[in-house]
Amino acid sequence: MGSFTDYPCSDARKFLLLWCCLSVLAVASLGSKTRHFKWQVEYLYWSPDGVENVVMGINGRFPGPTISAKVGDTISVHLTNKLQTEGVVIHWHGIRQFGTPWADGTASISQCVINPGENFVYRFEVDKAGTFFYHGHYGMQRSAGLYGSLIVDVAEGKREPFHYDGEFSLLLSDWWHKDVHQQEVDLTSKPFRWIGEPQVMTLTLKKLNDDVQEDEQTIRISAFDSANQRKRAVQLFPSGALWQLVVVNTVHAKGKRAVRAPDSPRAAEQDVQAEGGQHHRIGITQLGDRGQWVVKDMYLFSAILRTLLIIHVSFVLVSQNHSMIVVEADGNYLQPFSTTDMDIYSGETYSVLFTTNQDPSKNYWISASVRGREPKTPQALTILNYSPISASNLPPSLPPVSPRWDDYDHSKSFTNKILSLMGSPKPPSDYHRRISLLNTQNTINGYTRWAINNVSLSLPTSPYLGSIKFGLNNAFDRKNPPDNFSSLYEITNPPVNPNSTYGNGVYMLDFNTTIDVILQNANALKANVSEIHPWHLHGHDFWVLGYGQGKFSAKDEAKFNLKNPPLRNTAVIFPYGWTALRFVANNPGAWAFHCHIEPHLHMGMGVVFAEGVHHVGRIPNEALACGLTGKMLMNNNRN
Amino acid sequence: MGSFTDYPCSDARKFLLLWCCLSVLAVASLGSKTRHFKWQVEYLYWSPDGVENVVMGINGRFPGPTISAKVGDTISVHLTNKLQTEGVVIHWHGIRQFGTPWADGTASISQCVINPGENFVYRFEVDKAGTFFYHGHYGMQRSAGLYGSLIVDVAEGKREPFHYDGEFSLLLSDWWHKDVHQQEVDLTSKPFRWIGEPQVMTLTLKKLNDDVQEDEQTIRISAFDSANQRKRAVQLFPSGALWQLVVVNTVHAKGKRAVRAPDSPRAAEQDVQAEGGQHHRIGITQLGDRGQWVVKDMYLFSAILRTLLIIHVSFVLVSQNHSMIVVEADGNYLQPFSTTDMDIYSGETYSVLFTTNQDPSKNYWISASVRGREPKTPQALTILNYSPISASNLPPSLPPVSPRWDDYDHSKSFTNKILSLMGSPKPPSDYHRRISLLNTQNTINGYTRWAINNVSLSLPTSPYLGSIKFGLNNAFDRKNPPDNFSSLYEITNPPVNPNSTYGNGVYMLDFNTTIDVILQNANALKANVSEIHPWHLHGHDFWVLGYGQGKFSAKDEAKFNLKNPPLRNTAVIFPYGWTALRFVANNPGAWAFHCHIEPHLHMGMGVVFAEGVHHVGRIPNEALACGLTGKMLMNNNRN
Repeated sequence: MGSFTDYPCSDARKFLLLWCCLSVLAVASLGSKTRHFKWQVEYLYWSPDGVENVVMGINGRFPGPTISAKVGDTISVHLTNKLQTEGVVIHWHGIRQFGTPWADGTASISQCVINPGENFVYRFEVDKAGTFFYHGHYGMQRSAGLYGSLIVDVAEGKREPFHYDGEFSLLLSDWWHKDVHQQEVDLTSKPFRWIGEPQVMTLTLKKLNDDVQEDEQTIRISAFDSANQRKRAVQLFPSGALWQLVVVNTVHAKGKRAVRAPDSPRAAEQDVQAEGGQHHRIGITQLGDRGQWVVKDMYLFSAILRTLLIIHVSFVLVSQNHSMIVVEADGNYLQPFSTTDMDIYSGETYSVLFTTNQDPSKNYWISASVRGREPKTPQALTILNYSPISASNLPPSLPPVSPRWDDYDHSKSFTNKILSLMGSPKPPSDYHRRISLLNTQNTINGYTRWAINNVSLSLPTSPYLGSIKFGLNNAFDRKNPPDNFSSLYEITNPPVNPNSTYGNGVYMLDFNTTIDVILQNANALKANVSEIHPWHLHGHDFWVLGYGQGKFSAKDEAKFNLKNPPLRNTAVIFPYGWTALRFVANNPGAWAFHCHIEPHLHMGMGVVFAEGVHHVGRIPNEALACGLTGKMLMNNNRN
Repeated sequence: MGSFTDYPCSDARKFLLLWCCLSVLAVASLGSKTRHFKWQVEYLYWSPDGVENVVMGINGRFPGPTISAKVGDTISVHLTNKLQTEGVVIHWHGIRQFGTPWADGTASISQCVINPGENFVYRFEVDKAGTFFYHGHYGMQRSAGLYGSLIVDVAEGKREPFHYDGEFSLLLSDWWHKDVHQQEVDLTSKPFRWIGEPQVMTLTLKKLNDDVQEDEQTIRISAFDSANQRKRAVQLFPSGALWQLVVVNTVHAKGKRAVRAPDSPRAAEQDVQAEGGQHHRIGITQLGDRGQWVVKDMYLFSAILRTLLIIHVSFVLVSQNHSMIVVEADGNYLQPFSTTDMDIYSGETYSVLFTTNQDPSKNYWISASVRGREPKTPQALTILNYSPISASNLPPSLPPVSPRWDDYDHSKSFTNKILSLMGSPKPPSDYHRRISLLNTQNTINGYTRWAINNVSLSLPTSPYLGSIKFGLNNAFDRKNPPDNFSSLYEITNPPVNPNSTYGNGVYMLDFNTTIDVILQNANALKANVSEIHPWHLHGHDFWVLGYGQGKFSAKDEAKFNLKNPPLRNTAVIFPYGWTALRFVANNPGAWAFHCHIEPHLHMGMGVVFAEGVHHVGRIPNEALACGLTGKMLMNNNRN
């Protein structure tokens, strides 16, 4: 691994860390700044669920470091590929990359991959507050573990439209024991081999906004079998191998108290004067063997939980007895609403507020369960622990029962509550072009694929951004992919003719026009199966104008919500349903739009949009050093 | 996998195949020719030993296709990388690449790797008859299964200095169940994790020189446990999952007989008039379920077995009752000698003649066992089957007992028999420069490494060939690595100071000078351990002037064999011993010289030589499209 440094906050070197962090604070107070990070991507041994496995980590850790920034900051990540034989890229999910489309981190689309031993600097501005994340966007490197959180707070002196006392990031993911290279082979095998369901769901919780920089105080909570949860919880929690969240909640006399971390040279004094004269504080107890945090005293507490869903399955998150107030989605403020459970699809992010206002003599369950697929993965459980009760005291009641995996009415009810906060940007009242995208499962020469309007995306060797900018006509299919599908297509049946074709054409969008996309779901290859697909758009947010059942038709337009549709970058299509989106093609570049379930993208479930590429500035050579752009630049020179 | 074609002989399309093969014959008779191959490298599910696993294959098969050519032919392999995220290169082991150093297929040395989706054409002349092979030379892709045979016969109208009736290629390899990516992580972990011994040794036998193109009639013989060989053999052989060699041996009346392959549209008539009026023929019985070859009648048979050793461990090959006459090594003729067992080290190739002159009413064992490492892998066994006896009739005696793994006297005795055929090129009588290379096991920052003169090779991002040609001074260490080591170094003890350093400097050799290399073995990190290392030189053959025990000293020179030293490209150093080599630096290019045990190379056990690079012709752009050469060519163009 050699020497690796994570600017501004190295995890390894305490002194430098303190110095770094003080520097950050000093500079931050002067306004927006550039935050430099130096990352190395490499494979590591890790035990995400107690079973040792190889994961793709950053700077020796998994998940990767959390980036915390403020609106207006520039993020500069100097990435070195320390893998042995694999290229790598990192996508900054939810960041629109205005003016820096080559930093979107999508292989074959925005840049050439970073080859082993080589570097690339991702430099981009974060222009909106919200919950974001980053992840690999090449092969199935997201599934391999290449991801982390990216949290953008409001600029210095600005305020969020809600209040909270503490802040956590919660990464929800799933984990397969099978090596991702083998998963890739499975998905491209003839006959097809489905990779199966994940072995576990993982919840990775980090405390944020803490001077003490608790990046290392990651809380890893393995899923355990709900049928045996009591027995296994007792086995798991005191083992010292796992970490857990402790929300302390006792009455606290006014004044300063020391929060001491034994085995650590650091002690921080924190004291927050809250509304009504009460004190608020968050404590983390880490039960690992690398040091222990203990908070002695406590408070009524209100926290923001920023949740991000990384991989394949959709989750329902349930917080026992504690209602959650959803206030942000995909970096956009929502009309706050209260819920005790929430659906989260791969690629979505939320902020939720919750308050520790229940009986402080007990602990409570937090659970996550599979949504939209028949669950073969155990419910993930952790404990909301009221101090000073021991964290190993299990809640007296059984874990909350999640809604049935196929209770789509429940899901739709949740989804329909998501509306933009008053004062949010409104969509244009009309569109210039409508693109209807039929999602079907197909076969090509015996291979199982997903296709959009009967074209299964097969990414080209030369990234689109450079190819389009330099007019390299052989880099991809010049034929435009279809804007529509046959009106006769019967979405409730398996395809009559399942054959599809590979393609990699581009939807060329007129710059600054308004685009409507109607995502149309259909039956898969097997009868009576239609899956959930969360579609994610790069480079833009879109307004979600509406969801509906069956085949979209002109009359459905009347139901569009043009008043307060939520701005998102990811939206789900329900089984046999449609979802209508609107966005303005105002970001020069080439942008992926795809199902965020990684195996589905790998099987061709995506399209590519491009707009205003002639407005794109000088693309760094490193992003062009492959395929036809590389050839062009090198040939010109040697002739 | 799409459509893949293997020119000139597609395995899938029988008609085209026949047409292709006839074409080859037609052209071949006119003299040397260019043989075109179109290959796709991809991961496949395969069961090398009955356990399904992911292997790196070519055109849907493992091992890759056998290339058969004649001296003077040009081989042209159009390679497409169909891996998802990994680069790839292929090294043509034993081919010296005069005039085409960029086709040597070594990542970081001769070329930039071929990125996923991209192509590279390996075009080179085969200028010597002999047994060669090809394999991946990036990360541990050789261990992943990327290899195959390359057999060069004498030119049309020329004769070998020995006679045989049939020809086989036998690939000896070893196989791990652990994924190679995980093996790579093991080897670069702190603390170090040794990957352990292979689960099995594999013997892959192919019949060669057959118009019927038996590429697909690959014989895969899994190793099985020698302790239970009888029981397991009975289980394995009739199962239909394995293949075995049948050498048929009955009296045959003069005339043509049909050799029929049931379940195949092809029938071939073969009839060879041998010396003394006897007939000779070889038959293959394939017990797999994809068709079966049966030969009804048979002969006294003499065959050439071309053996190649691919991966890590060293093998001893034993043929029960049948002596083998060794006639060729690494593409150079030897003074023929007879043996019943032979040591083969990773990277070595041999031709041996054997005659089916034993009691034809029995079958016989052929075995392979681990050499030079305490064996934890079962002896590999197969049957030499005399037709018409059933191949499932086990030999009446127990399998041959191999020499003890650490019977180095036995190994040295075999090695010392290897001398060049009279009339072979002789070494220059003196050298211009002597380089003494001490092989030690070391640690760097807690990582376990191998080092040469205390430098552990860490390959650069920019391949040497282009960097040297274009004078890119920052591409690698400009400091020359040391030509010698301290005369005080105590080779029989673990290193007093085990610390080493990473390095990637080059031994710059004066063009057309004679170089002596003294390879000096030593004790590893652990007391009383000194391992075997087979060192392989690219771009050249060397004369092996001698082997000795202990530390080499000036007086050992007197023992050098300058009369008939064998020409090789791979030579072993025995524990605590030295090996003296001589070669002429007459091949413009940059050339690896390294231990051929893949994990050892991965751990730094190699050096790089370069000579006459200013004489190198125009390097194809594709070989330069990475690192600093790529940057240079692209920058020049955009400025």
